[in-house]
Amino acid sequence: MTSAVIPEAHHDLVDMPHVGVLTTLGSDGRPQSTAVWFVRDGAEIRTSLLTTRQKYKNMAAHPKATLFVLDPANPFRTIEIRGDVSFEIDPGGALFERIVRHYGQDPDTFPAPKDGRVVLTLHPKRVVVNG
Amino acid sequence: MTSAVIPEAHHDLVDMPHVGVLTTLGSDGRPQSTAVWFVRDGAEIRTSLLTTRQKYKNMAAHPKATLFVLDPANPFRTIEIRGDVSFEIDPGGALFERIVRHYGQDPDTFPAPKDGRVVLTLHPKRVVVNG
Repeated sequence: MTSAVIPEAHHDLVDMPHVGVLTTLGSDGRPQSTAVWFVRDGAEIRTSLLTTRQKYKNMAAHPKATLFVLDPANPFRTIEIRGDVSFEIDPGGALFERIVRHYGQDPDTFPAPKDGRVVLTLHPKRVVVNG
Repeated sequence: MTSAVIPEAHHDLVDMPHVGVLTTLGSDGRPQSTAVWFVRDGAEIRTSLLTTRQKYKNMAAHPKATLFVLDPANPFRTIEIRGDVSFEIDPGGALFERIVRHYGQDPDTFPAPKDGRVVLTLHPKRVVVNG
């Protein structure tokens, strides 16, 4: 099933704290995948990125990305969200803290840099679900 | 850690029957990800593909792909294998049967088409591991 909307029947895949696989395009034309934590905001997906990371540089040059989530309880149930990306500042690190809490961690003690982050928003253009 | 070789310490991620995420590049310049079953053959990764699938068409046009595997027991432990791809015929469906058995299924009863398949080999060019 394909549309540009995250279907309600698959909201759990993006609303539960599952690890997603975010793929960007490198300057060499190869896809590059990394594990990401993220949250859904209505029709969109948001994550927090350090601007020193290769995936940020890739998306700054080529603002498209794909997020893939596999249901850990049923590997035939998946969602793929292909979209365009945009970046914003994250005053006070509010989104970063929200994501860390969503994944059951304490932002005050979580061992990840808090500075130098931006909010990445993935605007879905094509959503493919299975299962 | 990065090299063009799958490090021994992470062989389990590609030798256990974990579901991988294979990403190809669509003609619209967007990465496309799907769940795949696969096996390792020495330094290379092999999977079985139906030539009717979009990912096959994508790789026929742009013979590069990335396989990403997340350790289900530790989401901070991952492997990403970026490589070039090549295709061969699969006489008698031997590789397809091997993969289906590796994932604990019976090739005689597994509900997937047996005809119209090719062997995809992913030749690693850059391997990134975490954890």
